[in-house]
Amino acid sequence: MPVDPASRMVRLALAEKGLPARMVETRPWADDGTLAAANPACETPVLIDEPPTGGEITLSPAATIMEYLEEAYPAAALFPSTSAARGEMRRLIAWFCDKFEREVIAYTVRERIDRRLMRRGQPDYDRLRQGLEALSWHMDYFNWLLDQRPWFAGEKYSGADIAAAGYLSAVDYVDAASWEKFPAVKEWYARIKSRPSFRPILRDRVDGVAPPDHYDDPDF
Amino acid sequence: MPVDPASRMVRLALAEKGLPARMVETRPWADDGTLAAANPACETPVLIDEPPTGGEITLSPAATIMEYLEEAYPAAALFPSTSAARGEMRRLIAWFCDKFEREVIAYTVRERIDRRLMRRGQPDYDRLRQGLEALSWHMDYFNWLLDQRPWFAGEKYSGADIAAAGYLSAVDYVDAASWEKFPAVKEWYARIKSRPSFRPILRDRVDGVAPPDHYDDPDF
Repeated sequence: MPVDPASRMVRLALAEKGLPARMVETRPWADDGTLAAANPACETPVLIDEPPTGGEITLSPAATIMEYLEEAYPAAALFPSTSAARGEMRRLIAWFCDKFEREVIAYTVRERIDRRLMRRGQPDYDRLRQGLEALSWHMDYFNWLLDQRPWFAGEKYSGADIAAAGYLSAVDYVDAASWEKFPAVKEWYARIKSRPSFRPILRDRVDGVAPPDHYDDPDF
Repeated sequence: MPVDPASRMVRLALAEKGLPARMVETRPWADDGTLAAANPACETPVLIDEPPTGGEITLSPAATIMEYLEEAYPAAALFPSTSAARGEMRRLIAWFCDKFEREVIAYTVRERIDRRLMRRGQPDYDRLRQGLEALSWHMDYFNWLLDQRPWFAGEKYSGADIAAAGYLSAVDYVDAASWEKFPAVKEWYARIKSRPSFRPILRDRVDGVAPPDHYDDPDF
């Protein structure tokens, strides 16, 4: 799903590793059984790999796909080299995939985009307001982290930045991020936007929900 | 937290690997700042390791702790040997930690035990009923899985069984599991109960919430 944060996370990981992939757009609420067969949780994304050794490997959810890609295709490493730093990266990946999804995405991106795609009418403004309040708390925390180190999990770009980029870019698509209030996050996002892996993400468009003008501008 | 499923998962992993650990009981809702400093998500469990190489490594949440333990203390491996099987194990760990927690635990264990510990009065029976309905769907899926293979992720006991044991034992503590209806899950749980790593779990008691009589009986 184009603006689904977890799907973006996997698209970014594949692009950073230079791995070609065929994208199949799937909407969980309109599944004909194909998605549920690949992932009984009936959620996007799912990766179906055809490894050089033969056969087919079906993987989900996004954090599991990241672990798999790093194990099976170690070139262009996305995981830090120490166990402690990998722990910090995994904590932040779980933060985005679980906590940020539940507290922010469910109330903002899913309310604005998924509801539109499902043709379920106008967004619930009470929910949007709740999501924006939670987002402000999260952004404050991210700004504090990025005041102390250049990338989310430490000194180097890692899977934690990929997760953050997937989730925060979806928030930006619905124009919910107040970048000016969080200068360290804004500066980080400018660096993310300038990476070649991020270009396809900036070209995504959902029918009927236009992103803000600054969405694909690296100098936002 | 004794009946917290994610904490149980980490206790089981430590016991399976024979790693000694000092337990510190923490209730997130009564945190004096210590838990939030160790885990900004303010959730249990947190593992603070003092590795032989010196220093201190702070880890959370439970799935990240499992990855760390397997990397740092590979003896008594809890992860399968192939990338595909590890993917299946991680899918199921995420299933329990995210989906099962959100759809079942939040409505059953947290409603019965956390609410009592917080002194917030009687459980909400509508929420309990919702949780039991969701549990029945999950148990059906687990029974289907365990009809096809002896352990959750395949031929061998793995981290997926540890996650399942942590979560399903908490459900059993509040007497919510209908074991008779799901014979493959029941047979698996009997094998889990007979493992030495599981004994401390069966001795847990929460003031004011007694487990059912069969809770610590291996022939339930």
